[in-house]
Amino acid sequence: MEKRKDLAAQPDGRNRVVIERVDPRIDCGRFPIKRVVGESVTVEADIFTDGDNSISGVLLHRHLQDEEWSATPIEPIGNDRWRSTFPVIKMGQYEYSVQAWIDHFKTWRRDLRKRLDAGQVSPVDLQVGAQLITTASARAHGADKRALANWASSIKSATNPLEGAHLALAQELADAMDRNSDRSFATTAHENLRVVVEREKARFGSWYEFFPRSCTSDVTRHGTFEDCKSILPYVAGMGFDIVYLPPLHPVGSTHRKGKNNTLVPSETDPGSPWAIGAFEGGHKALHPALGTFKQLDAFVAEAVRLGMEVAIDIAFQCSPDHPYTKDHPEWFSHRPDGTIQYAENPPKKYEDIYPFNFETEDWKALWQELRDVFLFWIERGIRIFRVDNPHTKPFIFWEWLINEIREEHPGVIFLSEAFTRPKVMYRLAKAGFSQSYTYFPWRNTSWDLRQYHSVMTRGEIAEYFRPNSWPNTPDILTEYLQTGGRPAFMARLVLAATLTANYGIYGPAFELMENAPREPGSEEYLDSEKYEVRPRLVDKEKPGSLREFIALVNRVRRENLALQSDRNLVFHDTDNPELICYSKRTHDLSNVVLVVVNLDPHHVQSGWLEINPRDLGIPGHTEYQAHDLISGGRYLFHGPKNFIVLDPSKVPAHIFRIRRRVRTEQDFEYYL
Amino acid sequence: MEKRKDLAAQPDGRNRVVIERVDPRIDCGRFPIKRVVGESVTVEADIFTDGDNSISGVLLHRHLQDEEWSATPIEPIGNDRWRSTFPVIKMGQYEYSVQAWIDHFKTWRRDLRKRLDAGQVSPVDLQVGAQLITTASARAHGADKRALANWASSIKSATNPLEGAHLALAQELADAMDRNSDRSFATTAHENLRVVVEREKARFGSWYEFFPRSCTSDVTRHGTFEDCKSILPYVAGMGFDIVYLPPLHPVGSTHRKGKNNTLVPSETDPGSPWAIGAFEGGHKALHPALGTFKQLDAFVAEAVRLGMEVAIDIAFQCSPDHPYTKDHPEWFSHRPDGTIQYAENPPKKYEDIYPFNFETEDWKALWQELRDVFLFWIERGIRIFRVDNPHTKPFIFWEWLINEIREEHPGVIFLSEAFTRPKVMYRLAKAGFSQSYTYFPWRNTSWDLRQYHSVMTRGEIAEYFRPNSWPNTPDILTEYLQTGGRPAFMARLVLAATLTANYGIYGPAFELMENAPREPGSEEYLDSEKYEVRPRLVDKEKPGSLREFIALVNRVRRENLALQSDRNLVFHDTDNPELICYSKRTHDLSNVVLVVVNLDPHHVQSGWLEINPRDLGIPGHTEYQAHDLISGGRYLFHGPKNFIVLDPSKVPAHIFRIRRRVRTEQDFEYYL
Repeated sequence: MEKRKDLAAQPDGRNRVVIERVDPRIDCGRFPIKRVVGESVTVEADIFTDGDNSISGVLLHRHLQDEEWSATPIEPIGNDRWRSTFPVIKMGQYEYSVQAWIDHFKTWRRDLRKRLDAGQVSPVDLQVGAQLITTASARAHGADKRALANWASSIKSATNPLEGAHLALAQELADAMDRNSDRSFATTAHENLRVVVEREKARFGSWYEFFPRSCTSDVTRHGTFEDCKSILPYVAGMGFDIVYLPPLHPVGSTHRKGKNNTLVPSETDPGSPWAIGAFEGGHKALHPALGTFKQLDAFVAEAVRLGMEVAIDIAFQCSPDHPYTKDHPEWFSHRPDGTIQYAENPPKKYEDIYPFNFETEDWKALWQELRDVFLFWIERGIRIFRVDNPHTKPFIFWEWLINEIREEHPGVIFLSEAFTRPKVMYRLAKAGFSQSYTYFPWRNTSWDLRQYHSVMTRGEIAEYFRPNSWPNTPDILTEYLQTGGRPAFMARLVLAATLTANYGIYGPAFELMENAPREPGSEEYLDSEKYEVRPRLVDKEKPGSLREFIALVNRVRRENLALQSDRNLVFHDTDNPELICYSKRTHDLSNVVLVVVNLDPHHVQSGWLEINPRDLGIPGHTEYQAHDLISGGRYLFHGPKNFIVLDPSKVPAHIFRIRRRVRTEQDFEYYL
Repeated sequence: MEKRKDLAAQPDGRNRVVIERVDPRIDCGRFPIKRVVGESVTVEADIFTDGDNSISGVLLHRHLQDEEWSATPIEPIGNDRWRSTFPVIKMGQYEYSVQAWIDHFKTWRRDLRKRLDAGQVSPVDLQVGAQLITTASARAHGADKRALANWASSIKSATNPLEGAHLALAQELADAMDRNSDRSFATTAHENLRVVVEREKARFGSWYEFFPRSCTSDVTRHGTFEDCKSILPYVAGMGFDIVYLPPLHPVGSTHRKGKNNTLVPSETDPGSPWAIGAFEGGHKALHPALGTFKQLDAFVAEAVRLGMEVAIDIAFQCSPDHPYTKDHPEWFSHRPDGTIQYAENPPKKYEDIYPFNFETEDWKALWQELRDVFLFWIERGIRIFRVDNPHTKPFIFWEWLINEIREEHPGVIFLSEAFTRPKVMYRLAKAGFSQSYTYFPWRNTSWDLRQYHSVMTRGEIAEYFRPNSWPNTPDILTEYLQTGGRPAFMARLVLAATLTANYGIYGPAFELMENAPREPGSEEYLDSEKYEVRPRLVDKEKPGSLREFIALVNRVRRENLALQSDRNLVFHDTDNPELICYSKRTHDLSNVVLVVVNLDPHHVQSGWLEINPRDLGIPGHTEYQAHDLISGGRYLFHGPKNFIVLDPSKVPAHIFRIRRRVRTEQDFEYYL
């Protein structure tokens, strides 16, 4: 037998409790889940042991900066599943685990109660308990130590078993034994589970994108940071809290694109801001026409004064004129003819763009430089980054970079601009991106919207993926918006702003309902600002704008906590597929919002909503009020079916605050 | 920047391929999956990378005794999911993993085709490819080395790009490049995934349990191994291949139980075989009344001669007279009065049984001794063990023990007798038990049976849990059997024998349809063999036995490969809840079996089966034959709805072999 494995290598065989399936958990603990400050993490695990012993356990948790673990009792919820919750109050990372052990006193106490019920308490049964209490007293300190010793001797010296049993079942004794439970054979789940805690804006924000170059009244003049300051009150007035600017860097001239993405630019064409880098500098430089760093600082300060933050675009690619191409040719792929390989998607060529070669032998220096680009802008006060096409750079690079940045700057928010296959988008979110653009622009039917948003806001995906919905971007003018007119823009705005807690628009194109494509079948804007200066300071004052409607929707978002989360989204059936219906509510039901949108921009649509009132926190048999926060109208709803008509020529949506009837002490009823 | 983490600690950042969700995988790789010799493992994984690079990959696999890994190409099946399969041909453990890398030649070749289609092949494009081929030639050996060098120079010296492109797209070149693909930046999933491969009997077996003590014609005489030999032809005649015997050890006399589990035995009462141990010995001894080891050997040899194996019961518990109680009192719990703690479930006491205390300080010696009990019987030729109440011993103990045994005896089969909560039963299977008893005895409605067996035979659970269905055991005489008469026994037999590949009965009680409970409401047998000798050699010849029906069902099981697996179970709807319908088929559709059972033992039931013919491998529009292997009747079925009548007073079940119509070369049609 000696050739067999030595049991010395075996972990202690007396750790008899099993802990399985600790959730939430992403890819077996490979990635952290996400929260924002002030939220909590509810942890569940399967916990059981052999035989019929009672178990006690705790949820362990600590901020990585803390030495000590905190422990919260974990309680059974049926079928060997246990649950507990801990709050996250600081940015950074927490780790959590579950520990459980066989609780011999709890077992004994449970059995004693059964013996008592059966009239079968014997003196030796009490001796067993007294022994457990004496051992606990030896482990305990202070008051518990003395109290437990006293309990043990009182139970031993009870005049009869019945009296002893009643003593032994005292709640104070159970509490003291709980505090001094024997954990020598405790099992701990070693899964290295973590939660990244960001600031609240990672969960809830309203983005507004505009081109600084277009902050001008005169098409011949390039907008400046000074000009941009003047548009900020307009943006703040619409209720946005993040102003997002496309790349601010010098634009290359080699292979520069002309108006409408043509290959032969005129001399005055400014080129695409995403063709980054010229002799004036690269990713750490400002386009000279925009102004100086000091002027940028002033612009940022003005945004902050108006309650907004500035987000900038980080696009890791270079124009042929970028200084990197001379200083670090080793960071690019070279063709056998000695030229640097431009971007292409054969047979399409993008000769104004050089991608980095992440397989360069010098990858470490490249990674460090790209990290330093972020740090450079962080030092200038930027805390939110929209990252262009992250899925064309290695996932492992982003994971490293975001961790590096967050170690000192846990408040930095990263938005992933990856319109690609689902698993790729999810991986970027797991790697650390705070938020992600989604396929929302192309989800236009109720089935599509419901299916897509259900996947994103439930289960494991919801633990790490935060959707950010954009009805339009400078690259995306959907067919729905091209053809649906004002009702389409209103419907898409309401959907973006209420389906997900984060959303954004590209303006003023959105509020002005610009809908002309570059050519039929294209999703590109005609005369896109990507390739030319547009005099937006004039545009924004155009009549008929949606700005007031947008301001209203953003106010509703701010005033209704239920709209500031994603994981509380619940869809409801309607009998008309042109009507989509969903609700969101706070945990405590103090805020419940019900949204109905007519997806048909051309016709009045009506139908029956099918809502279990309980999903809105309403007892089944009572009336409740649906208070439309857009029109101000108040409707009485009752039971599971209620009728709705939505006329797209007016407003194609209701955003109801659900108000339940309450009765005052004076027996007066009103809706809360 | 120097204070930041050194990138030296970072794995190579050029390993850009991501591998996620490798399946099958139990609890993140904590436990192996299960197979038997001759089966295969189909592995899937999410594999993708940044950008639009092409990927190549392999499924890696090897038996733990092999030095070298085998590699099978892995192919995409859509949505970034990839798949491959490897066969398992030896008992023991295999490990498997997935490796994938960016394939630059594959990418280049794909793009070249696009360039060619667009008429845009330039000489430099071909140079890029020639460079890749030259580098591959440097890596290659032998014929490939020379061939690749030749390819490179032919492509470089092509008279025009078109000719060069056509050369470069040759399949032989692609194959040679595949064989010499650059894996320097390959990603390997390091998840330590394993599969335990057992012998075929772990997947498919028919068990017959009987009490050796009852192999007698005379109630006053204790049966012997010699007597037991005489019952073997009877068991083999019914088609069973595993003969399972309750504990064979000396039975304790202290607190011995009398007939019908009474507390005061008569002098001749033999006691329960599960009260193991007396002065004659314990778990490594034979009850003297049964005979000697030599006689046992002869019994085992006779079983083998008849095509059967002998399984014995291992019950880790002791009677108060077990030698362990004197030699190793430290392996038991002691009460404050110095006595050993007997088993109890307050207020019930089981004073004839002492459980081991697995929290003893001497747990290592205890574990080793219990392992040696198995080794003792293995040395006597026993290879199948039914383990009594494993859920009352630590899971970690079983995991260690089963691994220890299997290291030298990979053919040993362990059946877990744990009728308890689902997660506990699953954990024992994960810990290594080959098979498990299930709640089948108490699943009597079609909804219950369907739901329960669907859970067990699909997804992750099916990767490690092998159900073994028993309509009765010496502890379980269900109400259904007590009240349903002959049709109930026939229906439960067919269900057990066809729902799961492993099943067993406790006989001759089963075939004799014994159905008298100890008292109303009890599931214990009246005059149970657990506590007394029953003259079964007389009993078994009783008229009206189900033995011929059982023999027929077991023959159907042997002759129909589809019935020898669990994971191929598919349920079909019927419009009558008293009729349950399901099918099983082989991968190649060469064997398809359809079962219909009338669950109502009292009334004729009829109804429509709703079966998509495709689920049976039949094209939707053709007739097919349902050949009843019980009655011999042949029915023509057509389309998705077919009518069935089952009269429980005759046979309450059909076991159809599905035969599809084929046409001979002579244009003659028949059913295959």
